[in-house]
Amino acid sequence: MIHLKGIARLLGFLLLLLAGFLLIPLGIALFEGPRTWQAFLFTMIIMAVSGLVLLFLSTGERFIKLQVRHAFLFVTLSWISAAGFGALPFTLSGSIPSYTDAFFETMSGFTTTGASILTEIEGLPRSILFWRSLTHWLGGMGIVVLTVALLPLLGVAGAQLFKAESPGPTLEKVTPTIAQTAKVLWKIYVGFTAAETVLLMLGGMDLFDALTHTFGTLATGGFSPRNQSVGAYRSAYVDVVITVFMLMAGFNFGLYHRVWSGKGRDILRNTEARAYAGIFAVSTLAVALAVRPLYGSLLNALRYAGFQVASILTTTGFATADFDAWPAFAKGVLFFLMFVGGCSGSTGGGIKVIRLVTLAKQAVVELKYLLFPYGVFRPRVNGEPVRKDFLMSISGFFFLYIAILLAVTLVVTSGGYDLTTSLSSALVTLGNIGPGFAKIGPTQNYAFFPVYIKWVLSAAMLLGRLELYTVLVVFHPRFWR
Amino acid sequence: MIHLKGIARLLGFLLLLLAGFLLIPLGIALFEGPRTWQAFLFTMIIMAVSGLVLLFLSTGERFIKLQVRHAFLFVTLSWISAAGFGALPFTLSGSIPSYTDAFFETMSGFTTTGASILTEIEGLPRSILFWRSLTHWLGGMGIVVLTVALLPLLGVAGAQLFKAESPGPTLEKVTPTIAQTAKVLWKIYVGFTAAETVLLMLGGMDLFDALTHTFGTLATGGFSPRNQSVGAYRSAYVDVVITVFMLMAGFNFGLYHRVWSGKGRDILRNTEARAYAGIFAVSTLAVALAVRPLYGSLLNALRYAGFQVASILTTTGFATADFDAWPAFAKGVLFFLMFVGGCSGSTGGGIKVIRLVTLAKQAVVELKYLLFPYGVFRPRVNGEPVRKDFLMSISGFFFLYIAILLAVTLVVTSGGYDLTTSLSSALVTLGNIGPGFAKIGPTQNYAFFPVYIKWVLSAAMLLGRLELYTVLVVFHPRFWR
Repeated sequence: MIHLKGIARLLGFLLLLLAGFLLIPLGIALFEGPRTWQAFLFTMIIMAVSGLVLLFLSTGERFIKLQVRHAFLFVTLSWISAAGFGALPFTLSGSIPSYTDAFFETMSGFTTTGASILTEIEGLPRSILFWRSLTHWLGGMGIVVLTVALLPLLGVAGAQLFKAESPGPTLEKVTPTIAQTAKVLWKIYVGFTAAETVLLMLGGMDLFDALTHTFGTLATGGFSPRNQSVGAYRSAYVDVVITVFMLMAGFNFGLYHRVWSGKGRDILRNTEARAYAGIFAVSTLAVALAVRPLYGSLLNALRYAGFQVASILTTTGFATADFDAWPAFAKGVLFFLMFVGGCSGSTGGGIKVIRLVTLAKQAVVELKYLLFPYGVFRPRVNGEPVRKDFLMSISGFFFLYIAILLAVTLVVTSGGYDLTTSLSSALVTLGNIGPGFAKIGPTQNYAFFPVYIKWVLSAAMLLGRLELYTVLVVFHPRFWR
Repeated sequence: MIHLKGIARLLGFLLLLLAGFLLIPLGIALFEGPRTWQAFLFTMIIMAVSGLVLLFLSTGERFIKLQVRHAFLFVTLSWISAAGFGALPFTLSGSIPSYTDAFFETMSGFTTTGASILTEIEGLPRSILFWRSLTHWLGGMGIVVLTVALLPLLGVAGAQLFKAESPGPTLEKVTPTIAQTAKVLWKIYVGFTAAETVLLMLGGMDLFDALTHTFGTLATGGFSPRNQSVGAYRSAYVDVVITVFMLMAGFNFGLYHRVWSGKGRDILRNTEARAYAGIFAVSTLAVALAVRPLYGSLLNALRYAGFQVASILTTTGFATADFDAWPAFAKGVLFFLMFVGGCSGSTGGGIKVIRLVTLAKQAVVELKYLLFPYGVFRPRVNGEPVRKDFLMSISGFFFLYIAILLAVTLVVTSGGYDLTTSLSSALVTLGNIGPGFAKIGPTQNYAFFPVYIKWVLSAAMLLGRLELYTVLVVFHPRFWR
């Protein structure tokens, strides 16, 4: 039987934690209008009361006893309730009148997608924009802990490849390890946040702009408080700083953890790190050559190409140019990158570099089997042969990803939208990227979609963010025995 | 060492066989101009001489000794040389002046794709149009023998799932079985050809139109001698006959073989057959509801929807309507179907129903593993658990298919084409479908593409037709030892 009390207890703690974070935008809102601070205060009260009720209902439970499958339900419910409650300030303050829109925006925030229904961003209260960006930062932190510390233990889609220290399959045994790992990850995340904020302020941003853009960068989210996104600053320095930090955020935080533990050389031998660097370099060069006529010098083209390639590859979604108006080949490269995504254990979404590298190696292995049917071949990652069950798990993930992508595309076409809009909106929500092509290009937004499509795209963001299986397993009849 | 002499001998026979088939269009051409019959005669001579030279060079070889890997090289070279020589009548007769265009058209014919560079079809000599359609029929027959009798023995991408009678991995042992199976398949193919031709003539077509459309149907090719494709006949009877035969051609010929051998009930229990029927029924209904406003009654909408769904699902590519102008959702369904393709062992291309069904079942199995990590689960096809190596092989195929699709898309964007045109031209050449969306919609053609893109798309047709691995394995360094 599903241990609902234990999950209720965990969710209770989560709601109290999020209510605590609401204090920051509430503080900002006190300098704005009563409607805004009342919206935050009211949301805080609702969340805190709900959290306390959940804790009260689950008194005496030690969540430490949770089984593996409860983790799936808890994680799925975490994101849904964070978005569900987190949407309230937007609606209550009148900034986003429709709850559907507010939920879409908040799910986009917590899943670090960055797809927005806002048509005019700069006119909103600062407290609202801060909360919008903060959802990125919180979601990003959640995802790092989840993918580095938790999922590998649960066996989701080859997440074991990026293995944590402990091999145990039950949460009970490994909670101390998770807690320990999470603490280090937290320090790294906060450290990066401080570093980027300071660097952006050195480039002339004020604290508010620097913080919100840092949140969007480190979470590979993409919400910006400016209508023109990062392009608004017209600063090569800002572009370079954000490009570097996007790439850092799209990289495996588990490896930073290793550097922290003095195993820094692992990065150089890491299969995923090398592929990630290679994809970034080749794509940037290809895009730069394609857009050079638009930007005069090759160096200037590299600045814009590098930023946009990093933004799409890491699934951030910031823009310094209207890439939907770029030459077809540059768009082709970005489209290709939308299928890639960041590294495992990063805040980036998408299919992830390591999965694609493993599948590519496996495809070559299949060729070898045709030549030598009695040989024994295995793809190698980080110098080690990949276990067959990991391979099957990754293959299943890839198939599901493409299948869900096409299914969501089909739903969007039912609204009467062209193929490019439909496919790219499915691709950039499932991949947690944000802007896409045509009607949802970088200068556009998601406001025009009918309500049912907004809910389906919100579900796509959730599915993509939680690596599909975490959500889908909850819908398996045997999950509930 | 690669046994080139044996391959040369087989290719020699193939060229002589194809030269023999050229007698038919040559006969038709005698009633046309000298330029046309001379083109066919000259091509016949070139092919016959080349064939004889190859046979002479390989005297004394018994091709029966060929190893598995030689089969890959032979099959790949067969399609390339069939297209290479088969393109000559088009160029020599002046019907298609550019050799690139003629090669594209002929590769499209032999791979049963149906993508055309012709802008004005009806103005061409009948002999030329007959040869164009005959390439479909020959290519379709070749593919049935290849996928039902040969590939399963070679172990290509789960082709073993559709297993032939003999389990032996060497050609030497199984040649008698292949020859026997091929003979039955040949009879079935010829029987279907006769049946459809007669039925189409009963609907008012002349022999020429009936034969050429039958060739296009049974090969799931899609070339039509009419500018408006099958739509030109404005006949519900013709539409229904062709719909039914397209579906029959997209079905596993190995199963017809079983019916022939008195095991007809196997079809009802066949996993792929059920999925194929289900996909057709659901898609037809969905498209019919979407296009109903265009066609008055639901029955009329079903006629057009059923035809187009069958045409795309089986990868034929005939059109009775400009589906690129259909409502977005109808286009979305067709786009989805472009990823599916026909059944294994059919003349249809694409990923194939059985692969997708197996992968979907495997994805569900992965969910079960998350719930019961110590359980043992295996997807079942036709009531039997699927072997792990088949699963790996199919997974590798699916990944490669998507990767090549995106790579070809990228190449097409480099010509400056929009995403819909680029992606759909990659999808419909790799999947051997023919018409796609936007610039290559059903009322358009491929003439406008630059030369390099035509060659890349020709390569995509070949790769897709020969199930990727058959071609790719030849490029593996260890193939040549």
